[in-house]
Amino acid sequence: MAERFFLIDCGEGTQLQLRRYKLRMGKINHIFISHLHGDHYFGLIGLISSFHLQNRKNDLHIYGPSDVEKIIQVQLDAAKTQLGFQLHFHPVDASEPQIILSERRVEVTAIPMRHSIACTGFIFREKPKDRHILPEKMKEYQVPVYDIYKIKKGEDWVSETGFTVKNEELTAPPTESLSYAFCADTAYAQRTAIFTKGVDVLYHESTFLQTEKALADKTRHSTAIQAAKVALAAQPRLLLIGHYSVRYEDDKLFEDEAKTTFENTVAVHEGMTIIASADDITIKE
Amino acid sequence: MAERFFLIDCGEGTQLQLRRYKLRMGKINHIFISHLHGDHYFGLIGLISSFHLQNRKNDLHIYGPSDVEKIIQVQLDAAKTQLGFQLHFHPVDASEPQIILSERRVEVTAIPMRHSIACTGFIFREKPKDRHILPEKMKEYQVPVYDIYKIKKGEDWVSETGFTVKNEELTAPPTESLSYAFCADTAYAQRTAIFTKGVDVLYHESTFLQTEKALADKTRHSTAIQAAKVALAAQPRLLLIGHYSVRYEDDKLFEDEAKTTFENTVAVHEGMTIIASADDITIKE
Repeated sequence: MAERFFLIDCGEGTQLQLRRYKLRMGKINHIFISHLHGDHYFGLIGLISSFHLQNRKNDLHIYGPSDVEKIIQVQLDAAKTQLGFQLHFHPVDASEPQIILSERRVEVTAIPMRHSIACTGFIFREKPKDRHILPEKMKEYQVPVYDIYKIKKGEDWVSETGFTVKNEELTAPPTESLSYAFCADTAYAQRTAIFTKGVDVLYHESTFLQTEKALADKTRHSTAIQAAKVALAAQPRLLLIGHYSVRYEDDKLFEDEAKTTFENTVAVHEGMTIIASADDITIKE
Repeated sequence: MAERFFLIDCGEGTQLQLRRYKLRMGKINHIFISHLHGDHYFGLIGLISSFHLQNRKNDLHIYGPSDVEKIIQVQLDAAKTQLGFQLHFHPVDASEPQIILSERRVEVTAIPMRHSIACTGFIFREKPKDRHILPEKMKEYQVPVYDIYKIKKGEDWVSETGFTVKNEELTAPPTESLSYAFCADTAYAQRTAIFTKGVDVLYHESTFLQTEKALADKTRHSTAIQAAKVALAAQPRLLLIGHYSVRYEDDKLFEDEAKTTFENTVAVHEGMTIIASADDITIKE
């Protein structure tokens, strides 16, 4: 998104998987940690250490529970490691939604999840893009180059001789800004749909099938049906589900169950690539 | 060794590798951590967490630098995890050799390594075993069953009528007690051979080839030749070398180099099994 490589959660062995799928680790400058259960962050210290051994120079930003800093620091201290790059910790408050990162082209919002310990989801949104200049109109009105920036931003154009051309005549609407919400780990909560309303792609955890709903309630996880219920209310273009309990052998069961409530659902697995554009969303194995 | 399953060091992904090689994790009751560089312990918290999720009940003993406890505890606290089993931390002093575990059949000694941070090697020794009773002699002298325990321990036998039979006449020597020394990470040090003199199997790190000796010195690692020099002085039945720098593509280079100094050397790799008995040592891929 906007040429950013965001890593969301970092379980044990993440660096091995990044290598396996030939993803360039060095491009990751922002890591988001939802909560401090091990399957979501035990690989972080290993990834940071590998960055160090690879002579990384770029700053690395980590967003997550405030304890992340303490946990990483005690391990760097134990190894007497002086990192060759800047590590910035951005503590995230899990009690209410907040914008935690805002750059020129992208904005990230943390949203509270409902789990057994403090946990946040993350919404990644491209900011509104520039309108598309219509070249033939630029030529027709002989618009000077230095005025184009403002026109792209949506302003009308005033010529040197004082006449005004409406922006709509000079431009076409911008490419749609895309958004992705990551919601895990969490029990079902109506508010999740409110926070994620209208995102393009919604990932919602689905640890259990509806037959284990009591267990889902107890452990503060969701069933496939519950993930689909959130999607039904939030209306993403695509629902992704994952984080299946090891008791199940076939991811397809989750997809089938969710589809009874929200048709456009994909049960994800490791190594899957989801490519979203304004026109369509494609999935590669 | 003596039906104990000892895990020595625990890098990231150790639990995955234990599963891959179908080793029964639950049998591990003792873990030894040499030092706090990540490749030697980042997988420990994940393994402990998995034990917890698997409802482990057996006590787990961890031997290593005192900071291990702090590092594990801060992560358990962050997840609000109350382990369902007892975790015992045994801090190891890296400054001098010491016996850190002594049970009925086995004893473990920590020995100082020479590395960039505090680091210990470990020597695992079977305690002397019982002598083998000669059944025909038991019959000949009509030795009562309740005297056999002491005879196995090496005592002479005194009959009810008062005559004495020398132990050597009643027993054969015990099966040889085996020993294994793990020496990593470390620069070459003559004392390593003194500590490990006469062990059956010696593992010594060999991060570099002799062409990179300057780098080995600087980073406090050893070359294959240096590992072999330690073996030449310690005279194990077998030298194992490993911990190769990623700069080399072929482990065989290490074996060839070491063999110029100590013939009975094997360059180890993941998944290898070494089975030692009094008679021979076999290696399975």
